[in-house]
Amino acid sequence: MRIKPRGSQFFQLLADAAANLVTATALLRDLTEAPPPEREAIAARLHEVEHAGDDLTHTIMVELNSTFVTPFDREDIQALAARIDDVLDFLDTAADLAVLYRLEKFPPGTDGMLRVLCRAAELTAESMPGLAKVGELSPYWIEINALENEADHTYRRMLADLFQPGADALEVLKAKEVVEQFELAADGFEHVADVVQTIAVKES
Amino acid sequence: MRIKPRGSQFFQLLADAAANLVTATALLRDLTEAPPPEREAIAARLHEVEHAGDDLTHTIMVELNSTFVTPFDREDIQALAARIDDVLDFLDTAADLAVLYRLEKFPPGTDGMLRVLCRAAELTAESMPGLAKVGELSPYWIEINALENEADHTYRRMLADLFQPGADALEVLKAKEVVEQFELAADGFEHVADVVQTIAVKES
Amino acid sequence: MRIKPRGSQFFQLLADAAANLVTATALLRDLTEAPPPEREAIAARLHEVEHAGDDLTHTIMVELNSTFVTPFDREDIQALAARIDDVLDFLDTAADLAVLYRLEKFPPGTDGMLRVLCRAAELTAESMPGLAKVGELSPYWIEINALENEADHTYRRMLADLFQPGADALEVLKAKEVVEQFELAADGFEHVADVVQTIAVKES
Repeated sequence: MRIKPRGSQFFQLLADAAANLVTATALLRDLTEAPPPEREAIAARLHEVEHAGDDLTHTIMVELNSTFVTPFDREDIQALAARIDDVLDFLDTAADLAVLYRLEKFPPGTDGMLRVLCRAAELTAESMPGLAKVGELSPYWIEINALENEADHTYRRMLADLFQPGADALEVLKAKEVVEQFELAADGFEHVADVVQTIAVKES
Repeated sequence: MRIKPRGSQFFQLLADAAANLVTATALLRDLTEAPPPEREAIAARLHEVEHAGDDLTHTIMVELNSTFVTPFDREDIQALAARIDDVLDFLDTAADLAVLYRLEKFPPGTDGMLRVLCRAAELTAESMPGLAKVGELSPYWIEINALENEADHTYRRMLADLFQPGADALEVLKAKEVVEQFELAADGFEHVADVVQTIAVKES
Repeated sequence: MRIKPRGSQFFQLLADAAANLVTATALLRDLTEAPPPEREAIAARLHEVEHAGDDLTHTIMVELNSTFVTPFDREDIQALAARIDDVLDFLDTAADLAVLYRLEKFPPGTDGMLRVLCRAAELTAESMPGLAKVGELSPYWIEINALENEADHTYRRMLADLFQPGADALEVLKAKEVVEQFELAADGFEHVADVVQTIAVKES
């Protein structure tokens, strides 16, 4: 019989939550590449992933309340789960708004944004099993930070493009709402990394 | 002579702050139902409630600095007061912007939003005396969470309605600014509940 | 040979970071007063200040990981550096967007906003050497809070002016994006002060 290290279920639960981000970003990329009539079905699948994420967050909270020894401060595990959940919400909102607003086409730069988000999701998922050795995660923070800068840069250019003279203000507003969610998701990945960094500072 | 439990004034101060939210949401509901010329007077009363909230927050901070034993971590009491204050600010801003922008009419869905906000305020106020037994507050979190989901859903549909082809982009922008404050207030109630949950996790 | 108090390098690093805010707000004020063709060069200089800020934040993080005794909780020093960095980002974004969007003219109220931001930067920079006696910093919080209220008031009036009937919705959208960064920067100064207050509550 093997003895599991105490609190190890949290690493698994957080890894599952981060794996959900990989699925959700891939679905959002598919949605942005699909013709309008096919988007609603993809958004529905993304919404199911978001629900699964809610369930995971709930399980983490329940486990936190019933586990005596946790690998890190309870508040940090809670914050990590909450920040991952935030990203999932932004991805789901982007898909939902694109469908709701019957967005004609995604603005130029969308493919670059989605590349950033998919990469950030992969990185985050890869880093979770490493939480046990949190001090070695600095390559993860550095790349997440660079990706957030890239997303921010792309976001501003996308808005500048949208605001070209002669544009239809109402279409601009709709596209801006959707693109904002991309940017919020990229920020959200950085906030996940910030919590990981907080844990590393405490452990150092 | 009765001995008050040490730190019990914090439960009372936080309960007073949460009671302010009930008054403020009711005033905001009245404002959204009133004809435009009557709105300014209601916004002025809401602004007084917001000032009273600022005073309460200040009192809580002063008490925190002069009290040796607090019922929870000082930072959590401070965070709870700050998050309640945030909600009050969003409610006050919504009223102020509606008056400042001379909003013609509140968009469809406003009554549903206000129902959510009034209920969230009541729930929050009811939960404050229960802080002493924070572990029993899970029905409060669960309903606040459901209300936030409802507000989010309503918010998106309200925007989709506003963005109908042919709409006046400037009027859309004005209405969107006001409706955003409703959504921020609903989020704000959830952030109050998050702090309560943080306290519960620590106490468990 | 003099013995430096342990951890004293953090006061210096945070003071350097706050001094950057003084430079950045002054550059942003210059940019808003300059004719459009001169703005890009000023934005480039502000961007260099923002880079210098990133380097300082990084140095603070590295020092936190290699210093055994810190003057306050590690997390609070980290939070202070992060919040100062946020303000620098908002200032840099305001400059970048004004150039990118080829904003014709800054809306009325811009000079008042910049006066608030420059004063908040000075106050923040003056308070950093006082961190060693954090309990005496209440005049700093009180003025920062008043400045944030003034910025918020100005921001709302600026938007109400922008939304005048007959305005070009696209120009309104562009100006609003830039003015929002001013408001976020003013909020950001308050968030810096909030962390200082958190430290004071813990030390009391």
